[in-house]
This record gives sequence, C-alpha cells and structure tokens, in this order.
Amino acid sequence: MAHSPPTIDAARLNRSLDELGRIGDTPQGMMRLAYSPADVQGREYALTLLHRAGLATRIDPAGNIIGRKPGADPNLPAIALGSHTDTVPNGGKYDGALGVMGAIEVVQTLADHSYALRHPVEVIIFTNEEGTRFHRWLLGSRAMAGLLEPEDYTAVDDEGVSLAARLADIGGDLARIDQARRYPGELAAYLELHIEQGPTLHQSGLPIGVVSGITGRAVLAVDVQGRANHAGTTPMPDRQDALAAAAHLVLETQRLATGAEICRVATVGHLQVRPNAVNVVPGAVSMGVEFRDADINALSAAETTLRRRAAEIADANRVSVDINVVESTPGVPLPARMQDLVAAAAEQSGLAYQTLPSGAGHDAQAIAAITTSGMIFVPSVDGISHAPAEFTPPEDCARGAQALLNALLLADERL
Amino acid sequence: MAHSPPTIDAARLNRSLDELGRIGDTPQGMMRLAYSPADVQGREYALTLLHRAGLATRIDPAGNIIGRKPGADPNLPAIALGSHTDTVPNGGKYDGALGVMGAIEVVQTLADHSYALRHPVEVIIFTNEEGTRFHRWLLGSRAMAGLLEPEDYTAVDDEGVSLAARLADIGGDLARIDQARRYPGELAAYLELHIEQGPTLHQSGLPIGVVSGITGRAVLAVDVQGRANHAGTTPMPDRQDALAAAAHLVLETQRLATGAEICRVATVGHLQVRPNAVNVVPGAVSMGVEFRDADINALSAAETTLRRRAAEIADANRVSVDINVVESTPGVPLPARMQDLVAAAAEQSGLAYQTLPSGAGHDAQAIAAITTSGMIFVPSVDGISHAPAEFTPPEDCARGAQALLNALLLADERL
Repeated sequence: MAHSPPTIDAARLNRSLDELGRIGDTPQGMMRLAYSPADVQGREYALTLLHRAGLATRIDPAGNIIGRKPGADPNLPAIALGSHTDTVPNGGKYDGALGVMGAIEVVQTLADHSYALRHPVEVIIFTNEEGTRFHRWLLGSRAMAGLLEPEDYTAVDDEGVSLAARLADIGGDLARIDQARRYPGELAAYLELHIEQGPTLHQSGLPIGVVSGITGRAVLAVDVQGRANHAGTTPMPDRQDALAAAAHLVLETQRLATGAEICRVATVGHLQVRPNAVNVVPGAVSMGVEFRDADINALSAAETTLRRRAAEIADANRVSVDINVVESTPGVPLPARMQDLVAAAAEQSGLAYQTLPSGAGHDAQAIAAITTSGMIFVPSVDGISHAPAEFTPPEDCARGAQALLNALLLADERL
Repeated sequence: MAHSPPTIDAARLNRSLDELGRIGDTPQGMMRLAYSPADVQGREYALTLLHRAGLATRIDPAGNIIGRKPGADPNLPAIALGSHTDTVPNGGKYDGALGVMGAIEVVQTLADHSYALRHPVEVIIFTNEEGTRFHRWLLGSRAMAGLLEPEDYTAVDDEGVSLAARLADIGGDLARIDQARRYPGELAAYLELHIEQGPTLHQSGLPIGVVSGITGRAVLAVDVQGRANHAGTTPMPDRQDALAAAAHLVLETQRLATGAEICRVATVGHLQVRPNAVNVVPGAVSMGVEFRDADINALSAAETTLRRRAAEIADANRVSVDINVVESTPGVPLPARMQDLVAAAAEQSGLAYQTLPSGAGHDAQAIAAITTSGMIFVPSVDGISHAPAEFTPPEDCARGAQALLNALLLADERL
C-alpha cells in the first residue's frame, strides 16, 4: 500500500462513546428506543460529529442517516461504514454505538490527516436495528437492501402509532420508503464494527474477531390453552394447567441446544400467563421461542423436534399447544475476501484475531444482499450484552476502530 | 320437631340469582369486584330483597350488610346465615351469590309462612371475601371475628386507593372498623350455603355436601434472580436463565401434590418474567406458589421440600432463589354437631349427601372463631369455579336453599 494508515484518536473516540452513552441513560440501562426523543437526540449528536468531520449528510426516506465524503475517482462507488444508534430497553452503551462512533472516528481521522481515498466513503446510521419498536428489526438496513416485507409498511407500535408517523418524526417518509433502496453496484463494500455480544473473544483474550457469517434465527409463537380453575378445589388429576405444560416446553426448548444439540442456542425469552392469579390454575400461556444457528436445517430440525415434543406434552397435560412461525431468517455467510481483508487490517496494526460467527443479527446481514460485506468484532466483557452491564474496555474500542480504518484503506486499495 | 319445615320457592330463588348475576356480567365473566360500582349495585339489590322479607338492615363499620329478623325469645342470640356477593375478576354467577340469595330465600319463605323462630335470624353479606381488592381476603368476616391484621388497616389497592376510601364508598368506616367485631356468645351459630367449586359432588351425583372443615392455605412468593443476556450470542453453558430455573420450580411444585403427595394441591398460578423479550435470556422471574391442605403440617412439609429442591435448582442453573411466606392459614375443622345438623337437614327433605372437606376458603372459616359454624355444599358442574363457565343447575341451588332452611330450623330447636 501507498503509506501506513494514520492512527485513530483513542481518547476522542471514547469521549464520543461516553457522550452518546449519556443520551437515554437511566438507572435501568440505556433507553434509546428507535424514534424516541432519546433516539432523536442521539441521531442529532451523530449528525454534529459527521458535519465536524466534513461529511455532507442526508436522511433517506427510511430514516437512515447517510454522511458522505467524496473520493478522488468520481466514477467509483462508495465504501460504506455503518451500524445503529438505537438500543433495546434496558440495554448497553456499546451495541451499535461503537460501530457508529468508530466509523465517525475513522472519517474524522482521515480528515485530520487530509487523507484522500479513491472511493467515496459513506457513514450510514441505520434506523430501528433492534426492532423493539414495531417488533420489526433491521428496518433501516432492510429498506436499503430492498428486503422490506408487507408487514413492515402497516406496522403499528405498542403505543398504537404507525410507522408513517414515527418515520416523519426522524425525517423519513413512508410513502417514499422504496426510494431508500440501493442496488448492487451502488456500494463498493460495507464494513461494520460491532461488539461481539458473546464471550468468545473475552475468553480467548484476543482483541479482534473476523466475522465469518451471521447466524440464522427462527422465532416461534407458542400458545398453550388449558382451563382456568380454582386452585384450592380442583384436584390435581382434573387440572388442565397451561403453566405446567409451558414449564415442560421451556425445558424442552433448552434441551434442543444442550442435551440434544440440535441447534446452537434455544431460548424462551417471553412468557405470559393468564389469568395470572395465585389462586387460579393457569388457563393459558403464550411463549416466544427463539432458535439461532448458522445452518437453516438446524433451525428446521429444532422446530420439528419441538413440535413433536409439544404434541406429547399437550397430551400428557390435557392442554392444546399451537405453534406458529413468526420469523425465519437463514444465516448469512460473509465473503472470504472480506474476512481476509479484515484479518489483514488487524495484522497491519499488530492485533491478534480469531475468526468466529456472529450469534446476533446485524445490519450487515441485510446489506450483504446488495454489496460485499465484512464485520469486525471486539470483546464484550463476560459476554454480556442487551443489559446495562454491557462493557468493552476503551482500549478494545480503539483497537476495533483502528482495524476499521485499516480495513477501509485496504478496501479502497483492493476493490 | 314441632312441625315439618316449609318449602322454599325454587323459582323465586333462581330468579334472584339470575337478577344478581346480571349485575357486573361481562362477556369475560362476572366482574363484581369488591367496592366496584357493580358490587355496590349488587349490594343494593340484596338490600331490597332483605327489606322485602321484612328484615331490618344495617351496615357495620367493616361494610358488611346485616339483616335481622327478631326471635320469639328476646334473650337468645341470633343464628346467622351468610356469604358474599363480590366476585373474582372473570368469575362465575354462583360463588358467594348462592349463599346470599339462598339465605334471603330462607327468610322470605319464613315470612311467607309467618314462621316464628325462638332465635333471632341474621342474614350477613360479608365484604371483600375474594380479596381481589387489596389482596387481603375475607376482609368483612375477619373484621367481624376480630381477625384483622396490621396490614389490613393500611391496605392500598392496585388503583392506589386506600381501604378507608373504599369502605366509605359502601357505608363502612375504617376508623370504627374494630366496632364491627362480635364476640363469642353474640351469635348462636353460623350457617353458610356455597357451591363446592370442586368436582366431588358432581362426580358422585349427590346433591348435598356436609362440609367437614375448610382447607389450610400457604402462599409463597418465589423470586428467581439470574442474569439477562443476549439470546443469540450467549452460549448455553454460560447462561443464568431465570425462566429455565423457574420451569423446574413449577414442575417441582406440581410434584409436591402429585408424585410426592406431600399436600393435597399445589399450584403456581402467577409468574412474571423480566425483561420478557423474545431475544433476551430471562434475568429474573417472580412466582406465586400456593399449597392447600387441611393439615398445617402438610403445608410446612411442602414448603420445606420446595425450599430444599429450590436450593438444588438454583445451584444447577447458576441462579439464586429467594422464598418468602406471604400467607399461612391453618385449616379450620367444622364442629361435629354442625355436621350432624346439616346431615339431618338434608335427610329431612330426602336429599342424599356426603361429607367432604372444602378445598376453597370461606367466610365461615373466620366466623368459626366466634361461633359454632356449619357449611352446606351443592355441586359445581365439572368442578369449574372462578371462571365464567361456573354453573350449578337451578334444582341443585333450590335443594341447597331447602337444606339451609331445614338446618336453620333444626338449629333453632337444638341450640
């Protein structure tokens, strides 16, 4: 390459992360839910930093913020760096935030050094990655990749507000959302820095993860229908206890990823009991079951096994169990040449790395549909994420941002 | 006895039951929650019927309605008939209502026949038997029996309204509630007609149950503390899944009354998950566990066993489990002479009966502390109660009211 990459300003990066982390911070963790006042404030802060780094900015009809720095060659497509600034409820300060603040630190460093690239560079801040709002995730990146589904357009959030109204609040426009779409050839590559959100790097002690692909995910809605009755007078053999049946299903779900090892992880994260009174035998239970695995066949096998066991549990407990697929997303492998590029970027700064899959979903999995994409992971202490205790040490954040800068320069050279 | 008992008016009784059952009726079942507008309307309807039967009425400081018919002997204490008109949410039309409408039918029948008794007769309609309001049950009957606890006086309901304010709405007065107390000797006896709320009589096909005693009850609050984490990235062995541990506890609770047969019934009726999102490993679960058994030792043994198993489950699932006793009420046996009296009352009208314990709690268990008490059960179809499908056929309601009248006359003769 022409010259060695400039060094990012670690202190400045961590100041920006701290500053963003104060917006929507509560004693119960981060509350920067998509389209909330805190989310809007976080976006405004990011816009200020983008302008300071000399980028022109626009908001696309999906509400994504796009900052652009021109390249030396007017005929080349842009290389994009991106992530998201929205959080889950009671979330952490690094999920998404590091990718955005890292990308901004990269373009600010390039500006500081008047470093010219052949390609234009874009920093993209995707909206509603978490999908807490509308229960529709990756909304901004799927809009850009042309992966919106009919349900997205008519989505209404838990407060009864439509996507159209929420988008208007952040400068988007549902009526024109299809214009947020970008097509293969419009972007030369996409790179995303993110915390791992799992324990692999923390346990191995390596600062950089080269992401081989993003896990597939299936979500099932499981409804157990029993019969509510008086808890004092209904003899045990006469009960149709929906919660006792649900308890068996929770343990069967766990077993799919432990004893049975059918899929990588299996979780019941959501469970609701009706009528939920201490003196009434539960009449009904609704559960949300999630499987994740890189292999779509593992997701199908887990579903098949759970359905078979659910039928047995329903019989044994005299209840009915209804299972519906809410979502099924196959895993997305990331191209080998982007893995090689990220690995080379780490080596350039003497950072040890390992290759690993992503257990979480990311905007990169949507954008991978329209351009060659790569991801860089940094360690999550104790593997904690989506929780207030989520933490990545400042030096690891800086290493990730440096690897991102190096990868951008390598991509600019190679692509 | 002097002469054969008069016959109650079955049609009139069932019309009154229907009329009361229209007050607070909803597509989701009865909603006559204590102190609600529907409850007040139900009480007003009962007052009208009491006045029609020629009784003088008053409302005591606990909000209990007391109707009184004088006796021939001014020196004798009253024999009381009673039950409640409040319901659980989504409840049925017979629980409590039959006992009150049955007692009113008894005094109306006596009035119709100008039937004179030696003892005065009281019809008592107790407030807030169900305890849905304030989560403090048997409030009216415990006030009358001198069994109020410090927590009753300071109770605030789920809407943030104090007991003082709620009592004022129905003519009670918290400042004078201790004056609702009545002492041994003030009442000659107490008789309560009630639906069984369980399947025993329905299964045996017998119209009358002679209640041998009222079950004891222990309620435990169980809190499971794990660690919330990302459901996609947290490997199974690293999880501290509060819901998986809670599922084991639900099944262990069930086992206490099935496989282990330590207590008669054991139920987890209430369970709450936090943060309760499909993509987050549950960090905490709160559960309400209830045991019921006539024998207080069985309740203690169930608690001890659950605590031991909870410690093992906590270890195996890397969570902590905290168990607190919310309530512990020993069983109340009903005196043999009242059981004999109810049996004789059934025989008098040629009604077959069986002796059985009550699995549910009743005002009679509080009033048993101040006078000799007896209970009459009639069948619940399919054993369903605390649910909209709760049903007792009109002829069984009438048989119960006739047995109540017969029992009153026998008590008047014998006591």
